[in-house]
Amino acid sequence: MFKIRIATFFCLVLVSCVITSAQDSDKPLPSWKASPARTAILDFVACAINPDCGSFIPPAERIAVFDNDGTLWCEQPIYIQFAFAIDRVVALAPQHPEWKTEQPFAAALNKDLKAVAASGEKGLLQLLAATHAGMTTEEFDQTVKEWFKTAKHPLYKRPYTELVYLPMVELLEYLRDNGFKTYIVSGGGIEFMRAVTEEIYGIPPEQVIGSSGKLKYELKDDKPVLMRLAEIDFNDDNAGKPVAIQKFIGRRPVLAFGNSDGDYEMLRWVTAGKGPRLGLIVHHTDAVREVAYDRDSPIGRLDRALTEAPDRGWQVVDMKRDWSAVFK
Amino acid sequence: MFKIRIATFFCLVLVSCVITSAQDSDKPLPSWKASPARTAILDFVACAINPDCGSFIPPAERIAVFDNDGTLWCEQPIYIQFAFAIDRVVALAPQHPEWKTEQPFAAALNKDLKAVAASGEKGLLQLLAATHAGMTTEEFDQTVKEWFKTAKHPLYKRPYTELVYLPMVELLEYLRDNGFKTYIVSGGGIEFMRAVTEEIYGIPPEQVIGSSGKLKYELKDDKPVLMRLAEIDFNDDNAGKPVAIQKFIGRRPVLAFGNSDGDYEMLRWVTAGKGPRLGLIVHHTDAVREVAYDRDSPIGRLDRALTEAPDRGWQVVDMKRDWSAVFK
Repeated sequence: MFKIRIATFFCLVLVSCVITSAQDSDKPLPSWKASPARTAILDFVACAINPDCGSFIPPAERIAVFDNDGTLWCEQPIYIQFAFAIDRVVALAPQHPEWKTEQPFAAALNKDLKAVAASGEKGLLQLLAATHAGMTTEEFDQTVKEWFKTAKHPLYKRPYTELVYLPMVELLEYLRDNGFKTYIVSGGGIEFMRAVTEEIYGIPPEQVIGSSGKLKYELKDDKPVLMRLAEIDFNDDNAGKPVAIQKFIGRRPVLAFGNSDGDYEMLRWVTAGKGPRLGLIVHHTDAVREVAYDRDSPIGRLDRALTEAPDRGWQVVDMKRDWSAVFK
Repeated sequence: MFKIRIATFFCLVLVSCVITSAQDSDKPLPSWKASPARTAILDFVACAINPDCGSFIPPAERIAVFDNDGTLWCEQPIYIQFAFAIDRVVALAPQHPEWKTEQPFAAALNKDLKAVAASGEKGLLQLLAATHAGMTTEEFDQTVKEWFKTAKHPLYKRPYTELVYLPMVELLEYLRDNGFKTYIVSGGGIEFMRAVTEEIYGIPPEQVIGSSGKLKYELKDDKPVLMRLAEIDFNDDNAGKPVAIQKFIGRRPVLAFGNSDGDYEMLRWVTAGKGPRLGLIVHHTDAVREVAYDRDSPIGRLDRALTEAPDRGWQVVDMKRDWSAVFK
């Protein structure tokens, strides 16, 4: 028995991450086929954790940011948060007769997903303001958690919590096993995502950054509450992403993963930093296992980022070619 | 030699935190004299980490929030950030002749600390807008780091980085050794604090929450930068603190530590949560080793929170009576 004396007693402990790394090292990222992107990830991480490597990254700097819609979970035929908002519109409609004729509410009530999708980011924010406000943060969290328990995707007929990309979940775990802190930086609602990110991605609320509505501190029966106001606080998309990263994290991440032009500025910001950087894009090319879309899609439009990826050294992950599995 | 086989190789590792805990357990919080506050902290932590205790707190929920000015470092005779702003005003004055007659700029140029202090939070925000904007986030970070290297406190004649409260640094480390995540939630500027919090408190940028100015993503010679605008984004004081805690952390902390009425709403919010909660207040009672001030101070005014502390079960730390040392 090998003993080490500390103070007045003996102590012998194993670090679980070492065990995990050891096990993962047999075959990391099992759902990723051999591809330039997989190789780039493995090389980047291998060097990041090796003090003898020129591209070693101190643990504190190992911060990886991920978009959510279309990068970690599916966003077609409409954003998952759209589906939640539609169900809320239906539930609240009796109190809002005007919604029968106002868009995107009328479209939501008619379950006209195409018309709702066509209303884009602006439509989402309108639905958010109307369906996500006027309650406390705790009430909203409960409403979202309850919805996820029963809601199903209109085409896959599966709970949304199962429609996360298995290869991406493997990547998140692989990065964490190697000392990376994984963050979500999404245009989606910050509190909507936080209701499930710990369960489906292992990402705690404090590592979720997203769009937000204003909050107001109030006393309700002399108990403090945070009320959700029907007013947009921050739109965490496009140029808002680097701004939010600086505000919430306060340093530049070393890895960024997105899937649309909404991630373009985040990819620029992260990969323009000094030292080792890795930028990646999920390209939705699989019409059989998921949906094939890019330059002309009203949701998750990927055009400029796809065009500039080769010159900027961003890895483009071809979902159909590079992933042996798509969903969990 | 005790061996454990993992995959194909041997692994034997010691966890430093276990060593630290072991050492600390001999005498935690060495600069804290026996007092109700010290006992409350030790009892709270002992139960928080004990699964058999009714007040056990799962590791993920062990979040502790600390005010900064007057709680972790000194705030008299003026906020440290005031001193930085004053030095910046002097440096920038040649480009702003109008400052000779405008307050708080005129007071800053005359080094009239009392007049600057009298301008309070509003004055600080005016100085911030005028002296902290028009540069990139990286340039500002460098400016602040450089300033801290040479600036000295007007009365103690010591670098500001040494004017942090030793008992509080011990508490931060003690909490982290027991699985707590320590956050700063301050009315001070978020980027100003982040320049030194890792060095002086062991708190990384992503765990620092504060007041902020707006940022703008821009391309400079085709390189992305974040410009600091002369526009307030968020004032993280009073009712702004619970709002910021929800926005940045996304769950309610279990421990809050402040020193002024600016922390009142944060203390209310944290201690109103279900399960074990601990609220603490530093009462500046030591006119010899520091400064004695509370209900009538223009800086760090402690009135309502001090009055309500007994009924709300908040521990009031008497600096003179409860701390055997004040500064590091």
